[in-house]
Amino acid sequence: MIQKYVCFHLLLHTNEAISVIIEKENVHIMTEGDRTMKVQTIKVELAETLKAKPNGAHLDFGTIFTDHMFLMDYKEGEGWYDPRIVPYQSLTLDPAAIIFHYGQTVFEGLKAYITEGGEVQLFRPEKNFERLNHSNDRLCIPHIDEQFALEALKQLVEIEKDWIPTEEGTSLYIRPFIIATEPYLGVAPSKQYKLMIILSPVGAYYKEGINPVKIAVENQYVRAVLGGTGEAKTAGNYAASLMAQEVVSKDGFAQVLWLDGVEKKYIEEVGSMNVFFKINGEIITPALNGSILQGVTRDSVIQLLKHWGLPVVERRIAMAEIAEAYESGTLEEAFGTGTAAVISPIGQLTWEEKDLIINDGKTGEISKKLYDTLTGIQYGKVEDPFGWTVKVGSN
Amino acid sequence: MIQKYVCFHLLLHTNEAISVIIEKENVHIMTEGDRTMKVQTIKVELAETLKAKPNGAHLDFGTIFTDHMFLMDYKEGEGWYDPRIVPYQSLTLDPAAIIFHYGQTVFEGLKAYITEGGEVQLFRPEKNFERLNHSNDRLCIPHIDEQFALEALKQLVEIEKDWIPTEEGTSLYIRPFIIATEPYLGVAPSKQYKLMIILSPVGAYYKEGINPVKIAVENQYVRAVLGGTGEAKTAGNYAASLMAQEVVSKDGFAQVLWLDGVEKKYIEEVGSMNVFFKINGEIITPALNGSILQGVTRDSVIQLLKHWGLPVVERRIAMAEIAEAYESGTLEEAFGTGTAAVISPIGQLTWEEKDLIINDGKTGEISKKLYDTLTGIQYGKVEDPFGWTVKVGSN
Ligand SMILES: Cc1ncc(COP(=O)(O)O)c(C=O)c1O
Ligand SMILES: Cc1ncc(COP(=O)(O)O)c(C=O)c1O
Repeated sequence: MIQKYVCFHLLLHTNEAISVIIEKENVHIMTEGDRTMKVQTIKVELAETLKAKPNGAHLDFGTIFTDHMFLMDYKEGEGWYDPRIVPYQSLTLDPAAIIFHYGQTVFEGLKAYITEGGEVQLFRPEKNFERLNHSNDRLCIPHIDEQFALEALKQLVEIEKDWIPTEEGTSLYIRPFIIATEPYLGVAPSKQYKLMIILSPVGAYYKEGINPVKIAVENQYVRAVLGGTGEAKTAGNYAASLMAQEVVSKDGFAQVLWLDGVEKKYIEEVGSMNVFFKINGEIITPALNGSILQGVTRDSVIQLLKHWGLPVVERRIAMAEIAEAYESGTLEEAFGTGTAAVISPIGQLTWEEKDLIINDGKTGEISKKLYDTLTGIQYGKVEDPFGWTVKVGSN
Repeated sequence: MIQKYVCFHLLLHTNEAISVIIEKENVHIMTEGDRTMKVQTIKVELAETLKAKPNGAHLDFGTIFTDHMFLMDYKEGEGWYDPRIVPYQSLTLDPAAIIFHYGQTVFEGLKAYITEGGEVQLFRPEKNFERLNHSNDRLCIPHIDEQFALEALKQLVEIEKDWIPTEEGTSLYIRPFIIATEPYLGVAPSKQYKLMIILSPVGAYYKEGINPVKIAVENQYVRAVLGGTGEAKTAGNYAASLMAQEVVSKDGFAQVLWLDGVEKKYIEEVGSMNVFFKINGEIITPALNGSILQGVTRDSVIQLLKHWGLPVVERRIAMAEIAEAYESGTLEEAFGTGTAAVISPIGQLTWEEKDLIINDGKTGEISKKLYDTLTGIQYGKVEDPFGWTVKVGSN
């Protein structure tokens, strides 16, 4: 095995002495002038043989994985330790590991893009690690060092950069996740965890250009409720969503629109996306109420709209209000936002047997402009006035 | 490795011919007279060395596992296949397995008891496999053959019978569970699963006799909501419960009492137990409303109470009603029911800063009688008029 080591320095806090104060395996805490630094070494073990890369023109989502992955362990009393990049391989876990029984786990999803000039970039990756810690809070999982995790991610992507497909709309999907690994059948937070990052080259979401979808408003099943785990990116929310999706997809719908779990009146999300409506010139999205996910794309869309001087409001929206706007002819656009599709225009919304056809079932002007601008920034084709992109391999 | 085979015959449907119609590995579909039978062979691979058995007097819950486990796989198009009992061992799974990301999983919990005469028995195990399939429905997991799974469980317990502790109140905890194993990052039901059964010798729940606990009524966090997964025994519900439990245990409470997620008014469950109240001579428990688990102990308690001619009602109960009954002096008893504790008397219920002390903080008469009768039946000390116990190793 080829071994290499990558160093990463983290400023901990100020201090006077100059000496190494802790040194063990690949963690070094040392002081330099008035700064205390933690030097974490990421051990890298490269695969001896590499897999054949897939054809970028025929990629699906989430079925092919790259040659390497990042791993780090946590043990109570010790904290996060042993960061390493190793060949992509199976996990070996006790059948009693808490993840298999009580679902104590969180995850993230983001992408690496390749620009025309061949540069590799990430889109607001710090937001994903910030959200991962937010999810950790709700699931009683210890925080990770966001800066360190981002550094590890960059190292991994740098090693796997030949896996980033170059065809239009393709990218490298990045899945950081944490699982509870302690073998224990009691219902209590685990004392052991694994943080992992795996990578998957993914095809263009829209093979023939951005295209509106049909959405069914879900009246029976609930994804999340206030006081539950809806604001966290955690497995149980997705497990809860499978059934509704199965039911509506039989009737030709792409996704469901989730209503709030309390009154089944207010709009929450669309499938695994946040959702926006343009009514009478104003763009409205459900406020972050504790049961919906704080989407990175959602936040970017809000910032872009404000930047363009367009009116955008975050507030509670009843489904009835959308239906009324439709009746009065003021419902101009609707679209979902998320890392996978970026912008997903909604061409039809079906609620209580009624079909609301939005913008003649065509992609709206704002949806198109947002899609072009966001993907433009992600692929380095248009200027990034917000400093959203982060280069890989340039430090 | 010592290999042995156990045969189990399942009647499929009537048929005329007499011949073997499918035969592959360890599945044989054959006809005999007018019956079609599926003969599934459970392959048994015994461990070469056995672990030391723990001291039954000092057992905790869910930390020690026996020498063997049961496993069976599922693949779309093939169904459930390769049932086997193997040495207890780690699972090897792709890091992209759906269980790690979207929590598609269900589980059960029941116990094997040893009688004074040395017989091994299970308590209503068919109810657990029935509930497992009910949970499967909600989680889009394919049904298991309940009869076959029970047979596999009996075989496993028979092999591990020396692991059943004999000390008063101890038992062998049984954890059947199913996990989604397909490596795929799309949010969709898995095409591959594993059904497993692991066993853990557990100590007496009450080391010094049945004892009341302090419970806090939870006003912020929600375990489950109508339309969600509360009626299924699935990981996400338990992940959602960790935080509330962490918060109240710091204040000395044993568990939380969960209110409904919609109005935060009505009583649902207590920790991982169903709950009963005795008010003015009548015993009341929340009706099965779709968001609470259909406890086997709950059902047994209801049947026992009816058998004794006591008034028992399943209906919606507001927490305010309990507080009123307390004020008027008619709240006579309260207790949780579940496989782990059987009956857990509630001595104190704290709601909105107010402490309701129930039955002077002592175990009530009905609670005690239920506990004695149920554990009596489970350990074969009192007659079982309902046919609830199932012997292992006697067929
Ligand atoms: C439930 C849910 N809502 C919304 C989103 C959109 O979030 P983001 O824009 O960060 O991808 C996601 C993730 O993609 C999600 O899983
Ligand atoms: C949430 C929940 N409620 C109630 C119960 C009680 O069910 P049973 O009596 O079948 O053990 C359990 C499981 O023990 C549970 O996990």
